[in-house]
Amino acid sequence: MIRIEPLTPQAFEQFGTVIEADPSTATEINSGYTTRFHALAEASVGDGKAIISIFRGRPRELNVAMLERHPLGSQAFFPLGGQAWLAVVAETPDLASCRAFHCQGNQGLQYNANVWHHPLLVLGDAQDFLIVDRAGEGDNLEEVFFDTPLGLTFS
Amino acid sequence: MIRIEPLTPQAFEQFGTVIEADPSTATEINSGYTTRFHALAEASVGDGKAIISIFRGRPRELNVAMLERHPLGSQAFFPLGGQAWLAVVAETPDLASCRAFHCQGNQGLQYNANVWHHPLLVLGDAQDFLIVDRAGEGDNLEEVFFDTPLGLTFS
Repeated sequence: MIRIEPLTPQAFEQFGTVIEADPSTATEINSGYTTRFHALAEASVGDGKAIISIFRGRPRELNVAMLERHPLGSQAFFPLGGQAWLAVVAETPDLASCRAFHCQGNQGLQYNANVWHHPLLVLGDAQDFLIVDRAGEGDNLEEVFFDTPLGLTFS
Repeated sequence: MIRIEPLTPQAFEQFGTVIEADPSTATEINSGYTTRFHALAEASVGDGKAIISIFRGRPRELNVAMLERHPLGSQAFFPLGGQAWLAVVAETPDLASCRAFHCQGNQGLQYNANVWHHPLLVLGDAQDFLIVDRAGEGDNLEEVFFDTPLGLTFS
């Protein structure tokens, strides 16, 4: 089993960036009617374009039977329904190196290019996410599959 | 007074792009557990970088006393609290050409570079928005101010 950890910027640092309203990035704009939490993540798209999409994630079994990565660009996720969700990443494409993070409903994240991760895992109901990733030439998807899935546990 | 129109892709076309879960862009990914509404908008950042920020918008008087534009890049907004909000745009930097749009809580939008618009206008309570815009060299902000503000009306 993979124990699910809280998502923090420090714990996630080697895999990418946590996107949350970090007070250290705050500036007041628009005559003081808006707080800008600035440049929480920077898209990395090489010779491609940064595009904005919506992913509608539906509930599935909470285990890891495969991993994928995007060699040509970063991929950012931000929940639009305010519900907590799970992220699974791995240093190397094997179950032994997997780590799972409990992302709160006000936390998004960006995977660096080349970071192995599991596709979207919602908790509870279906949830939409705003996605910023790369469009362009080249094959931006690698996948590995495992014979025996590994479960996830909060305890 | 500026009459507030519903936000539709057609009505907004000359100013930018509506970001919503458009069924014509849908593909099934992640073994059928995720619907991807693909490339709803493409960031335009010239020689800069696409960055992801959060704007925390607070209620203010619903009128137009100024407009701004970003000559060097696009700017996308997506509401994170599911609450409706307002967008005001203008063909030319004057009150006579202003148009106002009622954006639903599941609708974001992207202003094209150089499109005059009013800063963020929330309806009701404060709301956070995910922002994709440009960071880089150069002055990416122009503003015009008007002596007599123009109000907004739903009727």
